[in-house]
Amino acid sequence: MLNFVYHNPVKVVFGRGTIAKLANLVKTDQKIMMTYGGGGSIRQNGVYDQTIDALKGHSVVEFGGIEPNPRYEICMEAVEKAKTERVNFLLAVGGGSVLDATKFIAAAIRYEGKDPWDIVGKRAPVKSAVPLGCVMTLPATGSEMNSIAVISRESTREKLPFSSRHIYPQFSIIDPETTYSLPERQVANGIVDTFVHVVEQYLTYDVNTPLQDRQAEAILLTLIEEAPKVLKDPKNYDVRANLAWCATQGLNGLIACGVPQDWSTHMIGHELTALHGLDHGQSLAVLLPAVLHHQRKEKGTKLLQYGRRVWKTEGLGHDETINAAITRTIDFFKSVGMHTRLSDYNITPSHSREIANRFEQRGVKLGEHQAIGKPEIEEILALCA
Amino acid sequence: MLNFVYHNPVKVVFGRGTIAKLANLVKTDQKIMMTYGGGGSIRQNGVYDQTIDALKGHSVVEFGGIEPNPRYEICMEAVEKAKTERVNFLLAVGGGSVLDATKFIAAAIRYEGKDPWDIVGKRAPVKSAVPLGCVMTLPATGSEMNSIAVISRESTREKLPFSSRHIYPQFSIIDPETTYSLPERQVANGIVDTFVHVVEQYLTYDVNTPLQDRQAEAILLTLIEEAPKVLKDPKNYDVRANLAWCATQGLNGLIACGVPQDWSTHMIGHELTALHGLDHGQSLAVLLPAVLHHQRKEKGTKLLQYGRRVWKTEGLGHDETINAAITRTIDFFKSVGMHTRLSDYNITPSHSREIANRFEQRGVKLGEHQAIGKPEIEEILALCA
Repeated sequence: MLNFVYHNPVKVVFGRGTIAKLANLVKTDQKIMMTYGGGGSIRQNGVYDQTIDALKGHSVVEFGGIEPNPRYEICMEAVEKAKTERVNFLLAVGGGSVLDATKFIAAAIRYEGKDPWDIVGKRAPVKSAVPLGCVMTLPATGSEMNSIAVISRESTREKLPFSSRHIYPQFSIIDPETTYSLPERQVANGIVDTFVHVVEQYLTYDVNTPLQDRQAEAILLTLIEEAPKVLKDPKNYDVRANLAWCATQGLNGLIACGVPQDWSTHMIGHELTALHGLDHGQSLAVLLPAVLHHQRKEKGTKLLQYGRRVWKTEGLGHDETINAAITRTIDFFKSVGMHTRLSDYNITPSHSREIANRFEQRGVKLGEHQAIGKPEIEEILALCA
Repeated sequence: MLNFVYHNPVKVVFGRGTIAKLANLVKTDQKIMMTYGGGGSIRQNGVYDQTIDALKGHSVVEFGGIEPNPRYEICMEAVEKAKTERVNFLLAVGGGSVLDATKFIAAAIRYEGKDPWDIVGKRAPVKSAVPLGCVMTLPATGSEMNSIAVISRESTREKLPFSSRHIYPQFSIIDPETTYSLPERQVANGIVDTFVHVVEQYLTYDVNTPLQDRQAEAILLTLIEEAPKVLKDPKNYDVRANLAWCATQGLNGLIACGVPQDWSTHMIGHELTALHGLDHGQSLAVLLPAVLHHQRKEKGTKLLQYGRRVWKTEGLGHDETINAAITRTIDFFKSVGMHTRLSDYNITPSHSREIANRFEQRGVKLGEHQAIGKPEIEEILALCA
């Protein structure tokens, strides 16, 4: 096991009717900016009204219109509004995109450098942030219980993550009933996103961490079990609750304790989103099988364990187990309605070089061994053509 | 799934050589009282020296002599010393007993009522506590990442728990190397304590929580796998690290999220310790199989799952699976050197009534259904005679 520090101060308030608890989670002397999306879903599913009701007696201004893969440009509009209105608490109401944008806004308001994009583009250190909380309505990113945000920039067609302990939400409310009305495409994106978060932390190389391995497998097995149920019965409370808790547990730092981490699927995936507009989940479903196939030697021990424990590939040899594990992963993604090839999105091999070049330009190598560079990225993209 | 709140602010610093990190975890303007045990183990294994080294430049007073099942009486001596010395930070160095005592001391220093025992005996609310941290050298109680402490009182022969959000350690340092020199009896106690913590939160009734169930099974399976290794090879770092992380994860609130909880084995066990001097782990090894047998109907669904997933009892029917699960649990406890009958400790059935009476006098019923009262406690004690 590797040395680690685990410190996650988020207060999770989980269950039916928990939006009403907002009244006690935010102080009345705080001036709140409530941030939300542009699609109108929180107005349709009642979350907007529940939130406003719970915040009666509080001073609230609103900033709507945050889109999926939130853009730096719109975040900076929110920063201006927050400064003008002298806001001192941010409340994100929506999915991971709204929360990620809000985390960036919180850091950018207090940023003392010239250009807040440097927080993302140059990993400039975040020394402070406006306190924030969230009402999470789309289980997927795990953003509700972590210190990570991913921000896109229109002008440069970039999508990049940043992290700071100052952007942990003070609290996150998760009411599974708010997810009943999610479109199937979002449900599938959320399942795949959670699945791949776990795999990025689990399928690396073995450092003797049987508890963390089983905690990771616990999430994967639960996702595989619950996914068909949610598609058949979208208003089953327990299924929604189980998927939401999987999403939160998938990226809150717990299964990362003491293990190496990969994240190459995510990093290449962000390029497919930034350059070609794929949903985040869609990009992961295409890339993960190719990354696993390409790295089957480096990840051999863990891939074997993954096949045997998660996909119950009994009686197969080493190579057959790994082949079966990758095939079953693809089948699982397809079963929730996901495409798994670049050609399904009309992305041709000629696009691969542009993506690989971007990592070379940034001087970044990917994967748990930092060994996936330009040629390997091209090979991976060729594998999912 | 039941509604829940999860909020665990402890910073865990885990791994080789981490005691040196104390220098940055405690501020130099804090006056520290370092608390530790009476057996001298931290002097023998180097932890005392490492701690003092790391705290160079800090103002430190010491309070040693805290014994297993820490007594109210000695805690109050520490409270007096802390007040006289105007201490404003407590650092527990040792196992769960030292930390539990320190948690009580932290609350008692700030307690405004007449008699600090009321915090334990009457569950008087704790409104504040002196900040504390710990160097955990005995993985077992999970105290390093929770807000619980168990305190004994000599004059009344009582052993009772209390809980408050104010007694979470600010940080806990866990260096698995500090556990190399633990006596086998303490290792066995720690394994059984962790195992039973998990079972108290896992083997209740089913409320559809597949992730939490698997997270619980992850700990049980890892304990079963690592236990024989630690007995054979006490200086195997990874085995020690895995056991330590199991202990922390077993009682930090995570597997309790959204599920009912039992705790009858612990509560009856505390009486065996208070009245008959059994180690905490010893009391649990005797009682758990009897509680499971007595509650086999109420816990049927989960016992069946426990048998099949943890003990791999394939091909057996309902009753046979549950019988096998209980037998295998007993065998596991015996395999680490534990006794599993009251007669092994010369405790006769005539003592059972006194124990059962105590719960009746307190007006307390036990278990996830609050249905285990005086007659049931006597029946359970008869089962482990």
